[in-house]
Amino acid sequence: MSTVKRHKVILDEKEMPTRWYNILHDLPTPPPPYLHPATGQPVGPADLLALFPMDLIEQEVTTAQYVDIPPEVLDVYRLWRPSPLYRAHRLEAALGTPARIYYKYEGVSPAGSHKPNTSVPQAFYNAKAGIKKLTTETGAGQWGTSLAFACAQFGLECEVWQVRASYDSKPYRRLMMETFGGVVHPSPSELTAAGRAILAAHPDSPGSLGIAISEAVEVAAQSETTNYALGSVLNHVLLHQTIIGEEALRQLAKIEETPDLIVGCTGGGSNFAGLSFPFLREKLAGRMSPVIRAVEPASCPSLTQGTYAYDFGDTAGMTPLMKMHTLGHDFIPDPIHAGGLRYHGMSPLISHIYESGLIEAVAKKQLECFSAGVLFARTEGIVPAPEPTHALAETVAEALRCKETGEEKVILTALCGHGHLDLPAYGAYLAGEMTDHSYEEAEIRDAVAEALTRLPSIPG
Amino acid sequence: MSTVKRHKVILDEKEMPTRWYNILHDLPTPPPPYLHPATGQPVGPADLLALFPMDLIEQEVTTAQYVDIPPEVLDVYRLWRPSPLYRAHRLEAALGTPARIYYKYEGVSPAGSHKPNTSVPQAFYNAKAGIKKLTTETGAGQWGTSLAFACAQFGLECEVWQVRASYDSKPYRRLMMETFGGVVHPSPSELTAAGRAILAAHPDSPGSLGIAISEAVEVAAQSETTNYALGSVLNHVLLHQTIIGEEALRQLAKIEETPDLIVGCTGGGSNFAGLSFPFLREKLAGRMSPVIRAVEPASCPSLTQGTYAYDFGDTAGMTPLMKMHTLGHDFIPDPIHAGGLRYHGMSPLISHIYESGLIEAVAKKQLECFSAGVLFARTEGIVPAPEPTHALAETVAEALRCKETGEEKVILTALCGHGHLDLPAYGAYLAGEMTDHSYEEAEIRDAVAEALTRLPSIPG
Repeated sequence: MSTVKRHKVILDEKEMPTRWYNILHDLPTPPPPYLHPATGQPVGPADLLALFPMDLIEQEVTTAQYVDIPPEVLDVYRLWRPSPLYRAHRLEAALGTPARIYYKYEGVSPAGSHKPNTSVPQAFYNAKAGIKKLTTETGAGQWGTSLAFACAQFGLECEVWQVRASYDSKPYRRLMMETFGGVVHPSPSELTAAGRAILAAHPDSPGSLGIAISEAVEVAAQSETTNYALGSVLNHVLLHQTIIGEEALRQLAKIEETPDLIVGCTGGGSNFAGLSFPFLREKLAGRMSPVIRAVEPASCPSLTQGTYAYDFGDTAGMTPLMKMHTLGHDFIPDPIHAGGLRYHGMSPLISHIYESGLIEAVAKKQLECFSAGVLFARTEGIVPAPEPTHALAETVAEALRCKETGEEKVILTALCGHGHLDLPAYGAYLAGEMTDHSYEEAEIRDAVAEALTRLPSIPG
Repeated sequence: MSTVKRHKVILDEKEMPTRWYNILHDLPTPPPPYLHPATGQPVGPADLLALFPMDLIEQEVTTAQYVDIPPEVLDVYRLWRPSPLYRAHRLEAALGTPARIYYKYEGVSPAGSHKPNTSVPQAFYNAKAGIKKLTTETGAGQWGTSLAFACAQFGLECEVWQVRASYDSKPYRRLMMETFGGVVHPSPSELTAAGRAILAAHPDSPGSLGIAISEAVEVAAQSETTNYALGSVLNHVLLHQTIIGEEALRQLAKIEETPDLIVGCTGGGSNFAGLSFPFLREKLAGRMSPVIRAVEPASCPSLTQGTYAYDFGDTAGMTPLMKMHTLGHDFIPDPIHAGGLRYHGMSPLISHIYESGLIEAVAKKQLECFSAGVLFARTEGIVPAPEPTHALAETVAEALRCKETGEEKVILTALCGHGHLDLPAYGAYLAGEMTDHSYEEAEIRDAVAEALTRLPSIPG
């Protein structure tokens, strides 16, 4: 008679958290402010009103410990939330590890990742403020898909500038945005001054996230009824994602488990923050003591090899200056398949927390990541997005260390999305056509130093 | 203050049904037997042993009311089951209907559809019988993906012949099969006599399901440790799918709802049977009285326009003769996007039940189906596979009838899969490049009559 193993811990909709958690309330020291590039002075609400509604600007700076989730947002969240917490019994068996591996799965959302956790409240607050249209940029398309879905819920138009190279090579994501009602342009486009300037110089430009941001911001700034939305990096985005960790805390409590290690991948940082911040609150309060570990790609190692300094959030230098771990705002990461992790900087809030010694970071090369992804698919039945394969690779490595030591460690991993629209990456891996890439320390250090010399001078 | 609306009814893993339901036990009359084409006599277990293990052959013919699900199968089911039952509040609001619309969502499975409900037990029983490899055919790839996943769970090899046209045009599905460990060949292939014969005559053949079946069956028949697996049509496949309806019964009971109408799409029939047979048991026992309605594509209308007669299950005439609604075994349906519904016949069991007057059937054209699919995606956040958009189109039509009459009808729909790998079909619809197709009654009738003249003569 086989023992019945529980694979999932499910919460009822009635058990879904109704507040986001704001870690700014509990940090030993506050993070450095964003600076206006022209004045070097801290950015104020008025500087942001052209792009964001006041509710989101307030959430960017509040130090309240919790922010209530509006009922209208909760109603949309309930389309897929609470998301399941899984025990990876079959992965554990394949590894022969005494570790107990749990994963919080965000791929059940309409876009297939954690991104709708913030696109939905962003669309809601903008609609509440009378905004009619949101613009944004997208690379591979996860964020554009999430925003298109969210806009459809609140009667907003959604206009997305998608990096030309992805627009051409990944038509499925564009089609999903359009199915949700979004309008998608390849970037650079003839629709903006920024786009036209690029096309005049480089008619065949494949585009970049930096250019796409410039186009989306330009259009939003021109109209009082159009705003801009960002899918990671900023405090209010990380705030919205904390519902992931709040649910996971309740789910682990149900089965009386306490994590020894929490692992998440980091690009801009919102997925990692979403799972880990509520656990970090518990750690700061002395109620548990998990190790919290960020995993980034070796080809875009902002935490492990970048410099902690003020830098622009975008390539073109249109954003406020933010103190963060950066590879330089004009850094072009190697074209790995985990497009969502190809960002030159790291969320200022996560950067500050890393500097405070509250979290760890490691870098992984993509062959190891896809190897873990394939093992995961064959054992657990979910094809992971390339981004969370980084967390899975570290999870597998830790589970194998536990096999050596005999430790029954409890590992909690953020499985932030499925890879249904990323299957060509698996094809490249299985065909042996995938390569690894990493940087020498000096190479990164010198490049960042050179990029930072091109910033406006900052007082202090 | 907005009222809190429940979107999902969730069952705990402990509440998952542990038995499949066999409708053969409860039918007023038994369906006609399968016949051996050479003898015209009913097919016996010995005729099937070259392709199937005895456990499945027994399940094909048993009249027991329930069959216990093995613990090993339950353990794999729990990776995604019980699947959620949704109330489509946001779709209802968009339609302004007083109807209450529920959908049972099977897209949460590893393959993204209901197919793993049967691929998992088929792989299990074959492994238990000492089989080392399963072969199968696949068109668009849903079934091949499901079998590749299932084989990975029980250490079986999986070899799939995929129709060449799909192999070339839908690489994502092939990549998903390979990610799960399957080996995929385009069909026709040089690996079989059947494939070589086709290629000799037509080097550029785009293939067909009929050819792919011939190749998979040929390879399975040659080896004692290789068997063949089929994804729909047969009694044991429908049996395995009844876990869908058993769960839905429990979920509706939890919220004290009774369906007035049950709607599912039909290709081979396994999804429709899976949801509706347990409700049909309740209807036959007088405990509820839902209308049960099959929805098929107007371009492949086996129930609504086909003939009820003995015919082959495959194009090449290698299977037993089955009495079913058929368009003729050499019928080539219009290339609609709902590839899973492009089958010339209908499950013999469903055909018999339809003839008994226990279920209804309607046909839908694809433009209406995709219109319903897009509305569903934008309101409920799930992009449906093209197949269940047929059920959604009928659901929307019924909900709009209720709007006219004011009836608060309870409609239960089978949402048998997501459309993540079918987005080009949505692209064609949104771009206005999709066309409709249907047949004149006489056109179908004459074609079927002509095809049936080519059968071996059947006694009686």
